[in-house]
Amino acid sequence: MKIKINKEVLKEAVKKVASAADRKGNIPILSNILLAASDNTLSLYATDLDIGIATIVNCEVMEEGNTTVNAQKLMKLVSSLSVEEVECELEGNMFTVRTMGSRFSLATLPPDEFPQIKIKGENEVSIPSEEIDKAIRKVAYAASRDEVRYNLMGVYLNSNGERIDAVATDGHRLALYTMDASVSEFGVIIPRRTLGELKRLLKGTGEVKISTEGNQIFFEIDDTYLFSSVIEGEYPDYMAVIPEDNPLKAVVNKDEMLTALKEVSVIYERDDTQPVIMIFNPDRVKLVARRFDSIDAGEEAEVEIPCEYNGEEFEIVFNVKHMVEAVGSFDSDSITIAMDGPMTQVLLESSEEPQLKCVIMPMKI
Amino acid sequence: MKIKINKEVLKEAVKKVASAADRKGNIPILSNILLAASDNTLSLYATDLDIGIATIVNCEVMEEGNTTVNAQKLMKLVSSLSVEEVECELEGNMFTVRTMGSRFSLATLPPDEFPQIKIKGENEVSIPSEEIDKAIRKVAYAASRDEVRYNLMGVYLNSNGERIDAVATDGHRLALYTMDASVSEFGVIIPRRTLGELKRLLKGTGEVKISTEGNQIFFEIDDTYLFSSVIEGEYPDYMAVIPEDNPLKAVVNKDEMLTALKEVSVIYERDDTQPVIMIFNPDRVKLVARRFDSIDAGEEAEVEIPCEYNGEEFEIVFNVKHMVEAVGSFDSDSITIAMDGPMTQVLLESSEEPQLKCVIMPMKI
Repeated sequence: MKIKINKEVLKEAVKKVASAADRKGNIPILSNILLAASDNTLSLYATDLDIGIATIVNCEVMEEGNTTVNAQKLMKLVSSLSVEEVECELEGNMFTVRTMGSRFSLATLPPDEFPQIKIKGENEVSIPSEEIDKAIRKVAYAASRDEVRYNLMGVYLNSNGERIDAVATDGHRLALYTMDASVSEFGVIIPRRTLGELKRLLKGTGEVKISTEGNQIFFEIDDTYLFSSVIEGEYPDYMAVIPEDNPLKAVVNKDEMLTALKEVSVIYERDDTQPVIMIFNPDRVKLVARRFDSIDAGEEAEVEIPCEYNGEEFEIVFNVKHMVEAVGSFDSDSITIAMDGPMTQVLLESSEEPQLKCVIMPMKI
Repeated sequence: MKIKINKEVLKEAVKKVASAADRKGNIPILSNILLAASDNTLSLYATDLDIGIATIVNCEVMEEGNTTVNAQKLMKLVSSLSVEEVECELEGNMFTVRTMGSRFSLATLPPDEFPQIKIKGENEVSIPSEEIDKAIRKVAYAASRDEVRYNLMGVYLNSNGERIDAVATDGHRLALYTMDASVSEFGVIIPRRTLGELKRLLKGTGEVKISTEGNQIFFEIDDTYLFSSVIEGEYPDYMAVIPEDNPLKAVVNKDEMLTALKEVSVIYERDDTQPVIMIFNPDRVKLVARRFDSIDAGEEAEVEIPCEYNGEEFEIVFNVKHMVEAVGSFDSDSITIAMDGPMTQVLLESSEEPQLKCVIMPMKI
C-alpha cells in the first residue's frame, strides 16, 4: 500500500471515523482504523462493534493495499502536520507517513483481524440533513439517563408510512418532533451516542439516507457512513400521553420565559430536581423559586413576565430544568402552555412550529 | 445598606473578587464576599486567608452599611440578570437584589465575622502590567509541581535594587526573566495560584504597584487589590546554574523548532518525560523521537529543520516537554541553543529578547 494524499483531506477523514474506534483498547484491533487504498480512493473504517463509521476520500494510489493503524495516534499525527501533502506507505509492518523533511512510522495490525462491516441496510429513505439535525436537537435532551429504563435511553424513530416521529421521554417529560417522509413502517430506538456522532457528521451536508436491517440502523451522509446497533425493547405508546384538550391556555414569549426560568434558578445550587412555582394571572405569570434546605432557608427568587391568559389565578409547579429544556427547544417567538389541573400533564406547543410538541408532568412540593 | 448600581459594574467587581473566596465551604464566612457601601462606592472583599482580592466601584449609596453574601451565589445571580441597573438592600438578614419585575433574596452572614484584611505593604514599586504579565507567562511554567520541593512551587521575585528577576525552576530546567525597576532589595516566592489570579486581574490595565510586608505580597492594579501569603523557604542560587560560556552554539528559527518538536511528539502518548534526540550537523538539526515500550516498539518520528551550526556532529537528548515550553516562551524569531557536553546544562537565549534566559538539563536515554 502506497498513497499520496492532501493532508487536510486525510485529516478530515481520520477525524470523521476516529470517534467510532474503541478508546479502552481492550481489543487492540478495535482501536485501529482500517485503511484501504484502491481505485484512487482511500476508504477508512472504524468500529467498536456498537457503532461504526466509514468514509471514502480521493487520493493518488501508487500501490493498492490495506492496513490498520491506531486511530488516536493517526489523528494526532495528521493533526500536527503543517504540510499540504503526505505520502503514506506500508513498509513491512510499519505504516510510514512522509512529508518534506520528516518521517513518521506507526505500528500496524493485520487488516484481516478487522471485523467485517456492513454500511447499508434496507428500506432506504432520504431526509434533509437539517431536518434530522433539528429532530435530534429538539428531542434528544428528553431521553432517559436511567439505565433501569434502558428502552428510554435513546430517541425513538417511528415511521407510520407518511411521516417519521422522533420521540424521547424519561417518563417525566416527553418531546416529539414530526418529519414528513414516505417510507415503509419501522420503529427503532437510537442510542444517545449514535445521535451525537450523527449530529457531528451532519454538519454542512445536504441529505441523509436512512436504512435499517436487523437490529441495526444505517445513515449515509455524502461519502460517509454511520451504522449502529439500536436499543432492543418496546417503546411506550407516546401518542397516548400527549394531552390534546387541556383547557387552561397561557401564551408566553419564548425568550422572556427562558430568561425568567434561568433567572429564578440562580438561587439553586447545581441540581436537576429543583421546583419552579408558576402563578398564572390574567396578563402575567409569576415564577417563584424558593429554598427550604438548611442554612439557606428563606432564599427566594421571583420574576414576573407578561402572559396571555384569561382564566382564574392558577398555580402549578415544574421541575425547572425540564421547563428550561422544553422552552429552549422551540425556535418560535411564542409558546402556548396548555394546562388542566395542577397534577395533570402539560403540553407546550407553538403555532409557528407545529412539528414540535413537549409534554411535562408537574411536580409536587 | 441600600445601593443602586450598574449591573455590569457589579458583575465585573464580583467576578474579580469571587475567585479568592473559599470554595470548600468549611468556614462559611470565607465563602462569602464582604460588601461595604459608603461614600458612593461599593467595596468588595474576598479571601480564603491564603489569598485575597478587594475592589472598589462606584454606585449610588442610599444607605451605608456592610454585609456578606456567598460569592458563588452572588456571581451566579449577577451573571444571569439581563438588566442595566439593580438595587441591592440588606433587609433583616437577607440581601435582596431587585430589578424591574424581579426580586432575589440571598442569605447573609454578619460582616464582623469576616477576617480583618490589609491591602497594602511597604516598599512599593510600580511596574507596567505588560511586563509583569510577560514575566509570569515566560517563567511560571518552569516552576516545580512537586510538593516535596515546596520552595520551588512558585515564581521567585528577586530585587537587587536595580532590577527584578522573575525566576522559576523545578531542578531540571530554569527560566529567568529580568525587569528594570528601582526598588529596595527583596526576595519573595509567589505561589502559582497567586500568579494565576494576578494574570487574570492584569488584563487591560496600565501599572501594577507591588509591595511586601512580613510573609505577604501585595499587588495594586487600578482599583483592585490582590494580596497573598508567599512561600516560606530558601530559593536556590539561580545565577550559579546559568551557563555563560557554553561553546557549541546552534541558531534555529523559533517557529520551525517548535513545530518540529510538536511533530515528533505525536508518536508519544500523553507523558511528561519523553525524550527527543537532537542531532546537530552543519546547517541542519534532526529531531528524533522513538518508542521503546511494549507493542509500539519501533514507532519513530524524524523531522529535520535548518540550523546555523558550525561544529562537528553533536547529539544531545532533551525532555521534549521541557524543550517545547522553553522554545515556546520566546517571542523572538530565532533562538540560540548554547551547549557543552551531552550531559551539561544548555542555555537557550535570543539576542532579540535579552531579558529572557532558559536553562535545560539534558536527559540520558
